[in-house]
Amino acid sequence: MSSDAQDVRDWWRTSIIDMHPGVIGFRGYPIQELIGNVSFPAMIWLMVAGRLPNSAEAELLDAALVAGVDHGPQAPSIAAARSAVTCGLALNNAMASAVNMLGDVHGGAGQQTLELYYDIAARQDAGASLEDATAAAVADWQQTRTKFIPGFGHRFHKYGDPRAPRLLELVRNVAVKGGVSGRFADIGEAVEHHLGAGRSTPVPMNIDGATAVIFAELGCEPPLARGLFCLSRSVGILAHAWEQTQQGGRNKGPVPPRFLYTYDGPAPGERTVGSEGA
Amino acid sequence: MSSDAQDVRDWWRTSIIDMHPGVIGFRGYPIQELIGNVSFPAMIWLMVAGRLPNSAEAELLDAALVAGVDHGPQAPSIAAARSAVTCGLALNNAMASAVNMLGDVHGGAGQQTLELYYDIAARQDAGASLEDATAAAVADWQQTRTKFIPGFGHRFHKYGDPRAPRLLELVRNVAVKGGVSGRFADIGEAVEHHLGAGRSTPVPMNIDGATAVIFAELGCEPPLARGLFCLSRSVGILAHAWEQTQQGGRNKGPVPPRFLYTYDGPAPGERTVGSEGA
Amino acid sequence: MSSDAQDVRDWWRTSIIDMHPGVIGFRGYPIQELIGNVSFPAMIWLMVAGRLPNSAEAELLDAALVAGVDHGPQAPSIAAARSAVTCGLALNNAMASAVNMLGDVHGGAGQQTLELYYDIAARQDAGASLEDATAAAVADWQQTRTKFIPGFGHRFHKYGDPRAPRLLELVRNVAVKGGVSGRFADIGEAVEHHLGAGRSTPVPMNIDGATAVIFAELGCEPPLARGLFCLSRSVGILAHAWEQTQQGGRNKGPVPPRFLYTYDGPAPGERTVGSEGA
Amino acid sequence: MSSDAQDVRDWWRTSIIDMHPGVIGFRGYPIQELIGNVSFPAMIWLMVAGRLPNSAEAELLDAALVAGVDHGPQAPSIAAARSAVTCGLALNNAMASAVNMLGDVHGGAGQQTLELYYDIAARQDAGASLEDATAAAVADWQQTRTKFIPGFGHRFHKYGDPRAPRLLELVRNVAVKGGVSGRFADIGEAVEHHLGAGRSTPVPMNIDGATAVIFAELGCEPPLARGLFCLSRSVGILAHAWEQTQQGGRNKGPVPPRFLYTYDGPAPGERTVGSEGA
Repeated sequence: MSSDAQDVRDWWRTSIIDMHPGVIGFRGYPIQELIGNVSFPAMIWLMVAGRLPNSAEAELLDAALVAGVDHGPQAPSIAAARSAVTCGLALNNAMASAVNMLGDVHGGAGQQTLELYYDIAARQDAGASLEDATAAAVADWQQTRTKFIPGFGHRFHKYGDPRAPRLLELVRNVAVKGGVSGRFADIGEAVEHHLGAGRSTPVPMNIDGATAVIFAELGCEPPLARGLFCLSRSVGILAHAWEQTQQGGRNKGPVPPRFLYTYDGPAPGERTVGSEGA
Repeated sequence: MSSDAQDVRDWWRTSIIDMHPGVIGFRGYPIQELIGNVSFPAMIWLMVAGRLPNSAEAELLDAALVAGVDHGPQAPSIAAARSAVTCGLALNNAMASAVNMLGDVHGGAGQQTLELYYDIAARQDAGASLEDATAAAVADWQQTRTKFIPGFGHRFHKYGDPRAPRLLELVRNVAVKGGVSGRFADIGEAVEHHLGAGRSTPVPMNIDGATAVIFAELGCEPPLARGLFCLSRSVGILAHAWEQTQQGGRNKGPVPPRFLYTYDGPAPGERTVGSEGA
Repeated sequence: MSSDAQDVRDWWRTSIIDMHPGVIGFRGYPIQELIGNVSFPAMIWLMVAGRLPNSAEAELLDAALVAGVDHGPQAPSIAAARSAVTCGLALNNAMASAVNMLGDVHGGAGQQTLELYYDIAARQDAGASLEDATAAAVADWQQTRTKFIPGFGHRFHKYGDPRAPRLLELVRNVAVKGGVSGRFADIGEAVEHHLGAGRSTPVPMNIDGATAVIFAELGCEPPLARGLFCLSRSVGILAHAWEQTQQGGRNKGPVPPRFLYTYDGPAPGERTVGSEGA
Repeated sequence: MSSDAQDVRDWWRTSIIDMHPGVIGFRGYPIQELIGNVSFPAMIWLMVAGRLPNSAEAELLDAALVAGVDHGPQAPSIAAARSAVTCGLALNNAMASAVNMLGDVHGGAGQQTLELYYDIAARQDAGASLEDATAAAVADWQQTRTKFIPGFGHRFHKYGDPRAPRLLELVRNVAVKGGVSGRFADIGEAVEHHLGAGRSTPVPMNIDGATAVIFAELGCEPPLARGLFCLSRSVGILAHAWEQTQQGGRNKGPVPPRFLYTYDGPAPGERTVGSEGA
C-alpha cells in the first residue's frame, strides 16, 4: 500500500466499527453476537461510550430514552416535522429538519444539567458537603451562566413533571441493589431542595434534570446528553411526521390559513424605489 | 372557548400524546407506567403504530434496530456527521445533516423491499404459489421500477451480509413459538432463492431485506421502514460525530488537504468577462 | 503522483472551480475579474449553467430572484426558521431546517412547470400549433401526473398574483429588444388562457409559472429551477430568522402556548401495560 | 375579530412582508415596483436590514456575495452536498445538509471579524488612535477568545487570498466617491499590518476579513454576516450538487470505496457479550 493510500485510510480512522466482506464488528463484538443478545439501549451505549452497560445501567438508559420521546406538537421540532411532510418531504428529511432544532435552548438543557451535577460532585470531591456544594454550584451557575437553572421547573408542568419522579424511583431501586451508585440522584434532589427552599411553590425537577441523573450515573460526558436526547425525541418526531402523512395536507403552516399574521410595518406603497439610490 | 380557539387547537390535532399539567399519556398509557415497564423498541412501536408490540414482536424490532446502527465512515451520512462537528456544529445539527441523507438510495431500500414483499403476499392471497408470486413480483419490479432488486446483494459484503442470516434466525425462532407468523421470512428467502437460481454466485439477502422481513411480520407500512431505519442509523451517526469531536479537527474535508481534487475545466484566465454581455 | 493519489483526486473531479495558492478561477474566469464586474445573479448562472448570461438574461434572472424571496410567516419553511432561532440555533442551522422544507409540494412547483413548458415546446417542434400543443400537454399532465397544473392558480391570491404580470412584462420588454426569444412567455400565457377558457373565474399564472417562463428563456434544466428558488427564498428565510432573533422568544411553537392542541385518542389511563406482552 | 384570533395573528407578527389577495409589499414597497428596479443584492439588504442600500452599498454587497460563492469540493459543506444527491436527495435537501455545516468554524468567521472591527472602532470612538485601538483589540481577542485572529491568514492561500485585495480595491474606489466612509477598510488594513509586523511572512487578510469590511461599511450586525455568507455559499453548494447530479453516482462516500478506512479498535471476536451484564 502506498503512503498516499495509507494517509487516505487514516483520514477516516475510527475505533467504532471494523468491516471486511462478510464481517462486521462493533468495538470488538461481532455483529451477529450483538443482534438478539443486546438490547437497543445497550447497543446505543456500546456505540457512543465504547462499552456495554451492566444490566442496571441498561435498564436506566432504556427508561431515560422512553421518557423523552415526545412532548406534543406545540414543540417547534414536532410542528416542523409535521409541516415538513406536507411540503412533500420524505420521513428522513422531515426528521432532519426537526432534530436540527433540538438546539441549546431545548436539546441543550440535559447537557447543561449534567455540567451542573458534575460541578457539584467535583466540589464534594474537594471536601464540601452536598448542601454546600449544591449552593455554591447553583450560585456560580447563576452568576456566570444564567439565572435560570437547567433541569428544574417547567413552564407547562408547573407543579411537577410526571416523568421525573418515576425516573428517580427507578434510579433508587437500582441503586439499592448496587447497580449504580445513586450519587447523582442525591445531587439532583439536593438541587431541587435548594431551589425550592424558602419559596411558596417548589421548583421541581423536570425530565432534563431526571435524565441527567441517569446519564451521570452512567458516566456520560455532557455533550453526549444532547445526542442521547436527540435519539429519544427522534421517535416522537417520526411518530408525528407519520401521523401527519396519514392525515394529509399541503404546505401546512403554523396556523389555519384564515388567521393571517399581523403586519406592523409601513403599508405597501408608503415607500417608493428611487431616492435611496438603489 | 371561541370557535377561533377551537380551530387553532384542531389544526394540530393528534392521537399520539395527551398532556395536562402533571399528566402525560401516550395513546392511552400514562407515561409513568410506560417508563420502566416498556422497552425503548416497544415504545417506538407504540408511538408509530399505535399499539404495544407483543414480546416476540418487541424482540424482533429490537434486533432490527440493533442491526442497522452503522456501516462505517465511508457512508455519506456518517462522513457528513463527522465533518459537521469539525465545522463547529453541535451534535443535534450534525445528526440532522446526516439523517437528511438517508434518502431514496439509502434509507429507502427497506421501504422498497417491504413493497416487494407485500406485493408477493398479495399475489399469494390471490391464489398464486410462493414461487410463482415471487417470480411475478420480481419480474414486475424489474419492468416497472429498477433492474436492481432492493434488499438483496451488497457491493461490499459480496458473499453475504452477516446481519441478514442472524436476523432471519431470530425470526424463525420466534415464529416456531407462534410470536409471529414467519410468512415474510418465507417470502424473503423465496426472493433470495429466485434471484440466485441459475447464477454462479448467489444474491444474498442484505440488511434491508432482513429488516424488511421483520417490519413486515409486524405489519409495518412501507414508508415507516425508512423512518425506523433512520432511528437505528442515528445511533451510528451520533457515535461517529462524538468520536470525531474527541479526535478534534477543523473543517475536516473528505480527503486530506494535500490531495487537491482534479479540475477539468478551462484554466483561470482562459475566459474573460466582457463579450458575453454580463 | 501515485495512482492512488490520482484516484483520490479524481473522486472529487469538478469543472466549476480551479484553485492554487493565490489563484481561484470559476469556469475559466479569475475570481478577481468576476468580483466587481459581474452581478450576483450573473455569477449564479455562471456557477450552475457554466456560462455568463447576456445582459438581458441577467436582468431577467435578477427579477426572478427578487420576486421569490418571501411569502410570509405562514409558509412552513418561514415558520420553521423563526421557531428554530428561538431554540438556540445559529442562522445557518435555522436556514438549513427551512430550506430543507422547500420540497416537491413547494419548491418543486417551478421544476414541474418547466417540465410542462418544455413538453409544450417539444410538441410545437414536432409540428403542433401552440394551442394544440398546450391542450395536449395539459391533458397529458392531468392524466399522468396531477389534476392540478403547477404554476397556475393561487390559494391566497385568487384573482391574480401581483408578481406574475410584472415578471411577464419584463420578459416581453427584453424579448422586443432580442435579448431572449419570448417563446416561453407565449407558452405560459397559452397555458393560462387554456386553463381559464370556459370558466367563470380565471386561473392566473402564479410566481412559479412566471419564474418558470424566465428560467425556460434561459434554457434552465427543470431540477435547477428548484435550486434557484431555494436561493431566492433563502433570503426571506434569513430575514425572518433574523427578525425573530431580534424579537426574542424561547422555544416558540406554532401557536401561543395557551392554545393547547386537540387530542383525540384514548384518555391517559384507559390503557394499561401488561396484556399486550410488552 | 375575537381576542383569540388576535393573539394567534400577533404570534407571527412581522414588519417584513404585508400580504392581501393581489397585494404583496416588502417593508412598504409594492413587490411589482421592486421587481425589475432593484437588484437581488439590494433586495437582500432591504429584507434583512429594512432599508434599500444606496448604489455604492449595493455594489459592494454585490461584490461580497460574488466573492464567497465557493471554495471547492474539499470544503465539508460542498462535499456533503455532492454526496447527498447521490443518496437520492433533491436539491433543496442537499442544500440544507450543506448550509447547515456553515457553523462557527466556517460561516462564523465573518461574524467574528465583524465583532473585532467594531471593537476597534469603539476604541477609536473612545479616543484611541487606529494603531493603538487595533493593538488593544487584537490583544484582547487573543486573551479572551482565540490566539487565532479571524479574517486573516489562510491555510491554502498562504501568501494571499486573491479575493481580498480586489474587494478592498472596490471599497476604496467607492469611498473616494463618498458612497461609503472607508473607515473599515482602514481598520481591516490596520489589523493586517499589525499582525504582520515583525514577522518574516505576512498574515494577509482573507475573504472573511474583506467581506467583513464591506459588511461593516453597510452597518451590518455581526450575526447577519453569517447569514449573508450562507446566501453566497449556497450558490456554490447548488452548483456542485447539480454537477454531481449530472455526473451520477450512488451513495458516493468521501473516498473511492477501495480505500477502506483504518480501524484501530479491538478485532471482531476479541470481546464477547456476557460478562458485562448486558
